[in-house]
Amino acid sequence: MSIDDMALSPTQRSTVRRGRARARLVRAELADVLASARICHLGVVIDGAPRVLPTVYGVDLEGPDRGGTLYLHGSVAARSLVVAPDADICVTVTTVDGLVLARSGFHHSMNYRSAVVLGRPRLVTDAAERGRALDAIVDQVIPGRSQHLRAHTKKELAATVVLALALYEASVKTRDGGPVDDDVDIEADRVWAGVVPIGEWVGVAEPADNLGSCVNQPAHVSALCSASPGRG
Amino acid sequence: MSIDDMALSPTQRSTVRRGRARARLVRAELADVLASARICHLGVVIDGAPRVLPTVYGVDLEGPDRGGTLYLHGSVAARSLVVAPDADICVTVTTVDGLVLARSGFHHSMNYRSAVVLGRPRLVTDAAERGRALDAIVDQVIPGRSQHLRAHTKKELAATVVLALALYEASVKTRDGGPVDDDVDIEADRVWAGVVPIGEWVGVAEPADNLGSCVNQPAHVSALCSASPGRG
Repeated sequence: MSIDDMALSPTQRSTVRRGRARARLVRAELADVLASARICHLGVVIDGAPRVLPTVYGVDLEGPDRGGTLYLHGSVAARSLVVAPDADICVTVTTVDGLVLARSGFHHSMNYRSAVVLGRPRLVTDAAERGRALDAIVDQVIPGRSQHLRAHTKKELAATVVLALALYEASVKTRDGGPVDDDVDIEADRVWAGVVPIGEWVGVAEPADNLGSCVNQPAHVSALCSASPGRG
Repeated sequence: MSIDDMALSPTQRSTVRRGRARARLVRAELADVLASARICHLGVVIDGAPRVLPTVYGVDLEGPDRGGTLYLHGSVAARSLVVAPDADICVTVTTVDGLVLARSGFHHSMNYRSAVVLGRPRLVTDAAERGRALDAIVDQVIPGRSQHLRAHTKKELAATVVLALALYEASVKTRDGGPVDDDVDIEADRVWAGVVPIGEWVGVAEPADNLGSCVNQPAHVSALCSASPGRG
């Protein structure tokens, strides 16, 4: 059995309890959700209290950890990452696809795809893996970007922590489709109901003020805008 | 001094340590960030480990808690909310405004606005406040929607937990502007650098299959689409 066929939710705490109908149990759906976003929300525990911070991430489905690897990075001075190697973290990726307007407030919902990955991260120390991780993080935000950039300097690398989280203890939930209303509200026929699609809009790239006149906009930048549904 | 003038970061743990140049210390900026999004990421601690879940929220800047009130809701059976009244939670709202492409991977960044609110939530039991909270949550996602909906039924209210979090212990970070590159990379003039604007795209509303022919699309639904930058 390949890892793609492996069921999600290998532990009790990553088993979806609420809204089981929306739980997705196939590992390939985790990869799809992780591919859908540019940022995640990292959860750590600091002095017993939760802290949630937005950050970028990279994915290597063939990475060395069980189920593949999710990479995070940050400053060596960041509290959230310094705490992490000795404690569990949670990485959540959410993409909203639509607003679901029902006839009652109670049945309002969203169409979305979300992934929650839990686990004890691994501090990445191998130079080659650190390089691949940092490239994956850049390419998650701007596909194809990393190959156009110079190598990291020793100073940059010394200032950067890279963490790896196994894509193993994870859950995925998705919702799509129209509102699910109570019969009495449908029959009353008083309130507009339906779905309003939502997505990411990517605007026209704005060159830096100090960009030399010899550097043309590369294809990987133009592709960001043309891939946007707002341009469709 | 009005609450609007009150400085943010009243506690050590809500004082921004990393990237202080991006910290915003005026309370009005917290309101702006909270107004910019439709979902937040809720962090709780379950069995000592962090859990981060996407959810909707509502804001009442005149709410009864210090600094105003952020409302959350969920099923009475949800682990994240059952745990919360007896422990600190963290609510983070993030809006990405642009991708910042630098000449080096190290200096890549994003233009964004984010708010982190910490605290021990209050279980909302007063019927009138519960109603206002649920309306605020609907109206955060779809401005002006709640006034068109019927009252909640007793059964719906009995199935719903409402939590209030004071908008007091909070921090705000924002970034805007172009890439900040090292001089040596600017002089090399080899790599395209700039900003790619990002925003929310709102598509054309899709009526429910079972919508009666007498119900026209209301203005608060049409307004969602026309407010989208992707339509600009």
